[in-house]
Amino acid sequence: MAGSTFTTALKVRFGHEDHARIVYYPRVFHFFHCAFEDLFDVHAGTYRACLDAGIGWPAVHAEADYRRPLHFGDLLAIGLQVRRIGRSSVTFEYVVKRGGDAQASVIGKVIVVCTDMTTLRSIDIPPKYRALFEAHLVEQAPS
Amino acid sequence: MAGSTFTTALKVRFGHEDHARIVYYPRVFHFFHCAFEDLFDVHAGTYRACLDAGIGWPAVHAEADYRRPLHFGDLLAIGLQVRRIGRSSVTFEYVVKRGGDAQASVIGKVIVVCTDMTTLRSIDIPPKYRALFEAHLVEQAPS
Amino acid sequence: MAGSTFTTALKVRFGHEDHARIVYYPRVFHFFHCAFEDLFDVHAGTYRACLDAGIGWPAVHAEADYRRPLHFGDLLAIGLQVRRIGRSSVTFEYVVKRGGDAQASVIGKVIVVCTDMTTLRSIDIPPKYRALFEAHLVEQAPS
Amino acid sequence: MAGSTFTTALKVRFGHEDHARIVYYPRVFHFFHCAFEDLFDVHAGTYRACLDAGIGWPAVHAEADYRRPLHFGDLLAIGLQVRRIGRSSVTFEYVVKRGGDAQASVIGKVIVVCTDMTTLRSIDIPPKYRALFEAHLVEQAPS
Repeated sequence: MAGSTFTTALKVRFGHEDHARIVYYPRVFHFFHCAFEDLFDVHAGTYRACLDAGIGWPAVHAEADYRRPLHFGDLLAIGLQVRRIGRSSVTFEYVVKRGGDAQASVIGKVIVVCTDMTTLRSIDIPPKYRALFEAHLVEQAPS
Repeated sequence: MAGSTFTTALKVRFGHEDHARIVYYPRVFHFFHCAFEDLFDVHAGTYRACLDAGIGWPAVHAEADYRRPLHFGDLLAIGLQVRRIGRSSVTFEYVVKRGGDAQASVIGKVIVVCTDMTTLRSIDIPPKYRALFEAHLVEQAPS
Repeated sequence: MAGSTFTTALKVRFGHEDHARIVYYPRVFHFFHCAFEDLFDVHAGTYRACLDAGIGWPAVHAEADYRRPLHFGDLLAIGLQVRRIGRSSVTFEYVVKRGGDAQASVIGKVIVVCTDMTTLRSIDIPPKYRALFEAHLVEQAPS
Repeated sequence: MAGSTFTTALKVRFGHEDHARIVYYPRVFHFFHCAFEDLFDVHAGTYRACLDAGIGWPAVHAEADYRRPLHFGDLLAIGLQVRRIGRSSVTFEYVVKRGGDAQASVIGKVIVVCTDMTTLRSIDIPPKYRALFEAHLVEQAPS
């Protein structure tokens, strides 16, 4: 049974653009992280509470394909799906669409590792978060 | 006897501008902080070592006057002077000049408080750092 | 007759903190700017449309007093009031409160100048925006 | 004949870390871009002059593998090599090492497209920049 996409809304700000008047490309990874934080905030206590319990999720891999430029004032939908759940790693796929667009502006993938923030060692994903990720696990690529 | 100005160099980056193709004004406070960090790195061990010893310098007041716009590619000199040293607070003045300019592009002031980062309470400025600030104390305004 | 406070909501993100695990102080000016953009978006077309019409609002002065630290996960209310409207300049006051707090965490002031973005010269505030600012003009300081 | 690696130095700042006291992972792409800008500044006029001539290099793909965490105070060497030069696209590989480390902390790849910034269409890489990239073309992966 397929999980569902988690979607968060985000407004592109005046200061997010660079000299070329396009969103500075590193900032899109910040947008991905906002969706990641909101997933926890909405469905699993809060992301803050997770960190306060000593559990973090450092990225070990991040990538993005930029298909259409994003601009200041754009209202974005950041869609998050889980693609793979390992013992301690989780693979997320992000799809950024501008309001009203049928097609994605940016597609991204981020792999994080569940980490004990005291020892900085990987740990098994706790059941609560495993359930969170399973609820958003979609094993097919988005169209 | 007057202390001396500490100056650090900084290049304005492509991503520092906003939609108006001017440096996004909050970033200038980051430039001030870079000079502040460099002051410690050059003259008092390192800023990292200071924090590692449990001493931090949170800002309680910050201000800037923007006289000329800064742009991507500008090579800046960030001049730092100390204006006042209290028991735990220190007042810094920053003057940002673009390479070759006689006049300042931005003037700023930041007041920080020497803080025990474990208790988050203000503490007396340790002698090592008091000496650092005295060496850059200039009680007159820059022209 | 007193104008009203415009308030916008904002979540402090994981990446907004610095090494001291407090919101990096320059970022608060970004929060102010988010409220400023939202004011236009909600009450005067959009901020984007204003810029597209060739009108910008560069800051000539910005300041903030930091009274209580802000942290990742905090849900903030950014209150904006107009304090003074000149021919081309406008003075804004910002009050940042964390959800549930009676007292402000940060108080700020930013002075902007209505500018023709082609010539980069100051211009008279257009009537549409003068009305916007008058609707939020409060000539007394917030308690 | 193999091209050479271009290397730029960069200091990790207090505000570059996130709540986990590790460099916030999106910022590493900003570090890559700093090296990219410096390549032009050092070897091909300036990056600013390139943009002023109406030529930009938007990213169409970016990725990074995070092997060791980066921290505030680290002195980084950002190594840049060119992996592939097409008609209009160029593939860069970045290797981030902390001072004194033999092994990389982060490895990245960014593909950019030479773009006429007026029409936003891809164009042939001008000879001057083709020569710049060829001088840094290394067709084998770094160890």
